[in-house]
Amino acid sequence: MSQQTDRALSELIEWVKMPSHKTEPESMREAAHFCARLLKEAGFTVRFVGSPEAPAIIARINPDAPKTLLFYSHYDVVAPGDEGAWTHPPFSGHVEDGVLHGRGSSDHKATFIARLEAVRRLLKSGELPLGIAFLIEGDEELGSRGLEQIIIDNRDMLTASGGLYSGGARTETGKPVIRAGGKGQIAIHLTVQLSNRDNHSKWAAIAPNPGWRLVAALNTLYDGDRDQLLTKGFLESALPPNAADEAALAKLNFDVDAFLKSSGHKRLRADAQADPLRTLLFVPTFNIAWLRSGPGSSTVLPGTASAMLDLRLVPGQTARGAEQTVRDHLASHGFGDVLIEVSKGSEPEKCDLDDLVIQSLYAAAVKVHGECDVYPMGPGSGPRYLFARHLGCSLVQDPGCSWSGSNDHAANENIMIEHFQQNIDLIEAFLRDYARRCADGGSAPSLGGATNNV
Amino acid sequence: MSQQTDRALSELIEWVKMPSHKTEPESMREAAHFCARLLKEAGFTVRFVGSPEAPAIIARINPDAPKTLLFYSHYDVVAPGDEGAWTHPPFSGHVEDGVLHGRGSSDHKATFIARLEAVRRLLKSGELPLGIAFLIEGDEELGSRGLEQIIIDNRDMLTASGGLYSGGARTETGKPVIRAGGKGQIAIHLTVQLSNRDNHSKWAAIAPNPGWRLVAALNTLYDGDRDQLLTKGFLESALPPNAADEAALAKLNFDVDAFLKSSGHKRLRADAQADPLRTLLFVPTFNIAWLRSGPGSSTVLPGTASAMLDLRLVPGQTARGAEQTVRDHLASHGFGDVLIEVSKGSEPEKCDLDDLVIQSLYAAAVKVHGECDVYPMGPGSGPRYLFARHLGCSLVQDPGCSWSGSNDHAANENIMIEHFQQNIDLIEAFLRDYARRCADGGSAPSLGGATNNV
Repeated sequence: MSQQTDRALSELIEWVKMPSHKTEPESMREAAHFCARLLKEAGFTVRFVGSPEAPAIIARINPDAPKTLLFYSHYDVVAPGDEGAWTHPPFSGHVEDGVLHGRGSSDHKATFIARLEAVRRLLKSGELPLGIAFLIEGDEELGSRGLEQIIIDNRDMLTASGGLYSGGARTETGKPVIRAGGKGQIAIHLTVQLSNRDNHSKWAAIAPNPGWRLVAALNTLYDGDRDQLLTKGFLESALPPNAADEAALAKLNFDVDAFLKSSGHKRLRADAQADPLRTLLFVPTFNIAWLRSGPGSSTVLPGTASAMLDLRLVPGQTARGAEQTVRDHLASHGFGDVLIEVSKGSEPEKCDLDDLVIQSLYAAAVKVHGECDVYPMGPGSGPRYLFARHLGCSLVQDPGCSWSGSNDHAANENIMIEHFQQNIDLIEAFLRDYARRCADGGSAPSLGGATNNV
Repeated sequence: MSQQTDRALSELIEWVKMPSHKTEPESMREAAHFCARLLKEAGFTVRFVGSPEAPAIIARINPDAPKTLLFYSHYDVVAPGDEGAWTHPPFSGHVEDGVLHGRGSSDHKATFIARLEAVRRLLKSGELPLGIAFLIEGDEELGSRGLEQIIIDNRDMLTASGGLYSGGARTETGKPVIRAGGKGQIAIHLTVQLSNRDNHSKWAAIAPNPGWRLVAALNTLYDGDRDQLLTKGFLESALPPNAADEAALAKLNFDVDAFLKSSGHKRLRADAQADPLRTLLFVPTFNIAWLRSGPGSSTVLPGTASAMLDLRLVPGQTARGAEQTVRDHLASHGFGDVLIEVSKGSEPEKCDLDDLVIQSLYAAAVKVHGECDVYPMGPGSGPRYLFARHLGCSLVQDPGCSWSGSNDHAANENIMIEHFQQNIDLIEAFLRDYARRCADGGSAPSLGGATNNV
């Protein structure tokens, strides 16, 4: 390990030891200032923005460079949960057998330190031919509530020609993955309230039950017998993969058995069996995330029944459009009495596969790892669309520092130190490759000619 | 207040001060022994039966009398809940302005003391022309789990020609009520399990959701759009009220506005509006007591979805038959994969309205209160059927000591001391009347000729 990489790992461990969760306001500030100090020491101009409880850090260097890349990630972490389930204390930053343990190590502190270290390597060698902007927020785990305003208010520091999103992954077999996009998401709460209290169930003979009404409303939306969506216009609004997406999909494999094993499911949906990965990436979801009525233990006539529909959206769809589709459907089926409330959603966002960032990431990944999968979309959701909306800049997920056993949001979160080191190397190679392609006018060979198994 | 009534009230207060809840095993034993001591002092033969943690007390006097009455009630209480919500400590037995406060006062300690005091009055006057048996159990609030075996094992002490059940009520306006019967009940748990864990909802594109399947299954059982049961054979198995029931119903009023106000509902079910009380008492219920899927807070693809159907049964129906109807329905509609589990249920049980116990209770109530409603059925459920099954003896609910503000199972449980005194008088008058009718060969005028508003 080089002296520099050694320093980056020490910084990461120090940062992981800070329990920067919302219930630890002192640690939130400490973690934000730690991040800002590293950026300042590297030569960045740094700005604190957003709420004092969960400030975001915006930093920029080389503002006059012809091309700038924007790197987004976050320093807040989720609560450690049952600490008894951890083999090492969640904020110990314990290192053993090449593994760094700790809440926030994988989600998502390693990514920032790796990116910063890669930038510092170029600065040290006297050749940072790009502008670099960082946006590290502190509210990602609670839904990035202030992020849109932060982006709008700080366009001067954030404008870029492309960039990297947070996240990153490897397949179950360890193959690094680049994700060019992600789905949007909207949570639609349906509520049937017939009384503001639960009553003894003996009254069910004469007073109506909101559960039966909710079941009837839900049953018009979806045929749970044949697993078919009945909500007209929802699937129809999804765009199919374009030719480049199809070419990328054709190179990918999806391990159905590994998925069934890890999910505990016995079978895939009937409509996903023909092409699981294409379905996973390009078909929107229409999921009941939860159902609730009654106290769950006794014989009452509930006053209220509710469900949360969790819809994941693909290109061609919008959160507003999905909401309207559900509203129109329920109204036209005679369920105008069902209360519909929508949580703030996110929009689908997808980068073109011939984008220079993807080209360069792929070349760098093959150089470092010998192989890489390019996913034209990802099945998850996030605020990526805000960067496209306000900065005109699509962000891409590089392979990052996590693996399939990183246990994000669960006990024993960890990263392999080897993956951290590889990610520093990958980002360094990516920056050099991207700068060269920009200087060459983007004339590097297209991804279409690359193979996944070199 | 007579010296004797004074003594009965003191005993009741002392008993209410004992927190005989399952989490207080010492107090459970203390309360059981207190009850047994009073019975022994009155001259009863007493037997402790059932579990040592919640013993039942069986007592009998005058075993050779030609007619014996059986009185059932319980001494266990539910937990006090949030003690801060009580205006007086739950086990203080505080008396103020004619009200006795305390958990267990209404549910169900006053009833036993009132019945015992009535028996003691007859014994003191040298004229107890009946055998009297008591069964006071200690597990009613947890479902009377050992009661059936206790009845079977102690038939020698319990055999009777009629008797009184626990419970008892007044209408909202304070009119005393006799209830000749009660519904049966069965809890049917339906579960669709597709995985033993919840997964991230991004996987909903390729893995099926148990919520949609459960909704589809439920929707075949019941039309929640028109509030109509679709489960063939369930409503059809209910017997209609007989001529005597119809005559009793014709004399009763049901205050729809008071029900809507107390329940928080805006309207009755469409199928109950024509005759709410007849529907409440004689139509079985098919209620979703609860619905559950997902953790209720986040965007997951749940592994399991479940519902509890709570069915209340009327004469003509059985718990076993209701279960089989639901099983047959789901199997024949292609939902054989839905797991069906049934909690121990109870059977409907109804006493003929020309039963001597009802005749005598009614006469005694009119004597004490000047008026009384006779309900041919009650909308609630309980173990009353066990006495009919194993002793051939229908138990009737007398008006008891509770009123519409007694707050059973809630904070500030209480009884009016006047109701307690009236109940002693009523039971005394009932015993005298019943003995007289028995001696006369049951020749007293039938209930059909009585009016409710004398």
